[in-house]
Amino acid sequence: MALSNKGIRHLSRVLFKNPAVNFQVASLSTSKKNGATAQQVLTLDSMNPSVKNIEYAVRGPIVIRASQLKQELADGVEKPFKEVIFSNIGDAHAMGQQYNTFLRQVVALCVYPELLNLDSFPEDAKLRARRILEGCGGNSVGAYSASSGIDVIRQDVTKYIEERDGIPNSCDVNDIFLSTGASDGVVAILKLLVAGEGASRTGVMIPIPQYPLYSASVAELDAAMVPYYLNEESNWSLDVDELQRAYDAAADSCKPKVLCVINPGNPTGQVLSYDNIVDIIKFAKKNSLFLMADEVYQDNVYAENCAFHSFKKVLLHLGEGYMDQVELVSFHSMSKGYMGECGFRGGYMETFNINPGVKEQLIKLVSTKLCPPILGQAAMDVAVNPPQPHEPSYELFIKEKNDVLNSLATKAKLTAKMFNQTPGITCNEVQGAMYSFPQIHLPAAAIEEAESKNMAPDAFYAFQLLENTGICVVPGSGFGQKPGTYHFRMTILPPTEKMDSLFESFRKFHMEFLEKYST
Amino acid sequence: MALSNKGIRHLSRVLFKNPAVNFQVASLSTSKKNGATAQQVLTLDSMNPSVKNIEYAVRGPIVIRASQLKQELADGVEKPFKEVIFSNIGDAHAMGQQYNTFLRQVVALCVYPELLNLDSFPEDAKLRARRILEGCGGNSVGAYSASSGIDVIRQDVTKYIEERDGIPNSCDVNDIFLSTGASDGVVAILKLLVAGEGASRTGVMIPIPQYPLYSASVAELDAAMVPYYLNEESNWSLDVDELQRAYDAAADSCKPKVLCVINPGNPTGQVLSYDNIVDIIKFAKKNSLFLMADEVYQDNVYAENCAFHSFKKVLLHLGEGYMDQVELVSFHSMSKGYMGECGFRGGYMETFNINPGVKEQLIKLVSTKLCPPILGQAAMDVAVNPPQPHEPSYELFIKEKNDVLNSLATKAKLTAKMFNQTPGITCNEVQGAMYSFPQIHLPAAAIEEAESKNMAPDAFYAFQLLENTGICVVPGSGFGQKPGTYHFRMTILPPTEKMDSLFESFRKFHMEFLEKYST
Repeated sequence: MALSNKGIRHLSRVLFKNPAVNFQVASLSTSKKNGATAQQVLTLDSMNPSVKNIEYAVRGPIVIRASQLKQELADGVEKPFKEVIFSNIGDAHAMGQQYNTFLRQVVALCVYPELLNLDSFPEDAKLRARRILEGCGGNSVGAYSASSGIDVIRQDVTKYIEERDGIPNSCDVNDIFLSTGASDGVVAILKLLVAGEGASRTGVMIPIPQYPLYSASVAELDAAMVPYYLNEESNWSLDVDELQRAYDAAADSCKPKVLCVINPGNPTGQVLSYDNIVDIIKFAKKNSLFLMADEVYQDNVYAENCAFHSFKKVLLHLGEGYMDQVELVSFHSMSKGYMGECGFRGGYMETFNINPGVKEQLIKLVSTKLCPPILGQAAMDVAVNPPQPHEPSYELFIKEKNDVLNSLATKAKLTAKMFNQTPGITCNEVQGAMYSFPQIHLPAAAIEEAESKNMAPDAFYAFQLLENTGICVVPGSGFGQKPGTYHFRMTILPPTEKMDSLFESFRKFHMEFLEKYST
Repeated sequence: MALSNKGIRHLSRVLFKNPAVNFQVASLSTSKKNGATAQQVLTLDSMNPSVKNIEYAVRGPIVIRASQLKQELADGVEKPFKEVIFSNIGDAHAMGQQYNTFLRQVVALCVYPELLNLDSFPEDAKLRARRILEGCGGNSVGAYSASSGIDVIRQDVTKYIEERDGIPNSCDVNDIFLSTGASDGVVAILKLLVAGEGASRTGVMIPIPQYPLYSASVAELDAAMVPYYLNEESNWSLDVDELQRAYDAAADSCKPKVLCVINPGNPTGQVLSYDNIVDIIKFAKKNSLFLMADEVYQDNVYAENCAFHSFKKVLLHLGEGYMDQVELVSFHSMSKGYMGECGFRGGYMETFNINPGVKEQLIKLVSTKLCPPILGQAAMDVAVNPPQPHEPSYELFIKEKNDVLNSLATKAKLTAKMFNQTPGITCNEVQGAMYSFPQIHLPAAAIEEAESKNMAPDAFYAFQLLENTGICVVPGSGFGQKPGTYHFRMTILPPTEKMDSLFESFRKFHMEFLEKYST
């Protein structure tokens, strides 16, 4: 194998810029003439094939191109747009959402306890910071915590869950594991579940469309993906007959053992009804499936006729035969909700009806990572233990929280409305989460041209959209979709004041695209 | 399978404490009588066998027992000691080390930018915080960063490496990946490297004794561990003949592809000489091995005749045939050094001579975790971009840094000396890192009793030590050791003022142990 570009870059740098080292190395040209470079150990051929099989569209090629365009704009290159709008990822702060004051005050006090002496910090923030610090080794956020998280924060999580579900004393602190965002927890649980080979390989039922963490993890762990389709015609509902169809279709090629549900849905934004969850749990029990409930958008419900119901709550309501048997892990995160604190990498999972021996294995597994980031844990504590009405920060906290959630609700409605007013686009109601997932009805000529370029038609569309408007969305093919349908995921996060011009520029592009390819 | 204890606990809680749910569930006794509980999906038999194979002694059974003892003391139970001393893990802040003021100021300013208006924060801290915030999406540490980290921080890492190694322009920002502590980076690289089955399975050469992250990851990834022994007789040196022996011994059962080196050593505390590193690199090249250099203790060198040399620097000095060919990834962390900020989960890795296609795969792989914690990245920035002599925080920063490192150096010397003054114990010089790894010469009767209890003899010893003195160390068997030798790892982190009484109580226990088992 010849010298890599990087090798050459390094060599020439050392050769030409650093006389101190220059004498120690022979010239690059000699090396190339000799052709004596060794075979690389780690190549695309020799590397782990399971890692190669991973796809992760949310940070895929279109996002890389968007970052290039941003840099080109900064460098003064002329473009048909003035800024790149990153609507590809649920990254609220990057889109201008302001932090929650109380949350940041508590974390800052934990980071630099000298601030506890300042009168400008409210007493309720100081109270929480002191309590968190007392839970830390050496009273410092610089110490590792237990691998499952700081005890007082885990206790606060149990209280939060009990109040959320309206079922006192239903949550055991030993079932709570703080995590590095929700992704970290999801991967840990999937790791426990994969086993077997060939037809006895673990099958993981995943919604289509899905958040690509699931398909990526299943690929990396070499498990079998068992896709079930959400029903776009009835607002991305989850139909138990379809679950059964998917289960039966997979039963010969793997052993379906896990059912993943994302509620509210990502990228699809639907919110499951109570009765729907009852049916899903019954299906899981009937088919001996381990339930994984991704509930990171539990605070993000916008539609008037919808409410969030946790799988845990419904499981408890179902009583004996369910509450004592169905194995469930549910996930939550700091990154979504009104907090939007993605950068903190905070989250938790709650295990329920998990085999005690397996839970010991889970504790061992997470201990190899030592512990989740302490400041992500501290931030999570504020989310599950917010200021109460009698506390000084209550009013500001609630105002900031409601401002964020109300604005998201407004943009959720606006987004679906704007798309549905555009010819060739249909978009379901965004009941919850942070995304619209409109269907684009592409002209045959556009599909042909995409295929001639070896691109998924919706990726072709999304790249055109990006190059012409600066709007970065993720092609539906990155989440999965019914064959012959095309979508994209766009966040509802751009600032309200930019929404009108965003849709104007989108609509202009879309109409020109339709015109160009409609013969 | 019968109801698990947890199932019963949950049921009885819901049944007896929550009348609102009571009506919905039948009685526990009926359920048990019927024996109608379903088979659990996830059991010790059905779970991932690779996860089951993981061992992770640093947070293993002895640490769990130590935590129980701590709780018992807090509950007023009589013990032969007044406190549990957690000497099992390199967790400096938990052992009373104070945070670095400047580091925490910068992070606090990033968390709560309102603080930028306070005169009490120094200008150099504000300067760094503003620069980091400008590198964040929406100027907020709540935004995700690029998966490889915030650009300005990665740039600061390149400057740090170039200055550390004394080789200008030798570091490419595209080779820097910030990570969630060093462990996260190590696992990502190992993931890329594992492939094949049976005799073509990737073999990973790991020092014995080793930090158990390596054996745990190799077990989890189902690769083959190729152990090579460090030479205790010459201060845990790394002998290239032994590398060759280990390589040859493994070559029939797997394909050795990776050589892991920990320098300064964990748990062994040795610091590799320049010439030794030259030999190791030559060995890696000769045998086509991918080098992984765990250099998290690069700031922790105490012995007068020792200095830290990075593998990258030595590789560059070796010139053509090496600097352009040998594949290397090195790892660093916020958790060690003078910072000791374990809870921040910050670190970075530098890739070098990595195949460009593989690097794209690495970028994709780390992107499934979205990004390392932003505040861990911010803390890392301080470590690689500390105050300069002309800046207002310089003096305090250097004083705090030196206080920590000088105290560690004193304790490193003291630890080896105290152990060597104890009959039946021999301890190498602690040249670097944060641990002593003394050998204990156990009486035959103690070994017999341990084996009759189905315990490793050094685990038996360590549990006795814990129960009698409250001192928690990790048995050598958790790190690996030559058969028939017994060790334990003890950190050098307990506060200086506690060291005397710690060793007094250790020595008392040890002499009684020897007496009891010497017949």
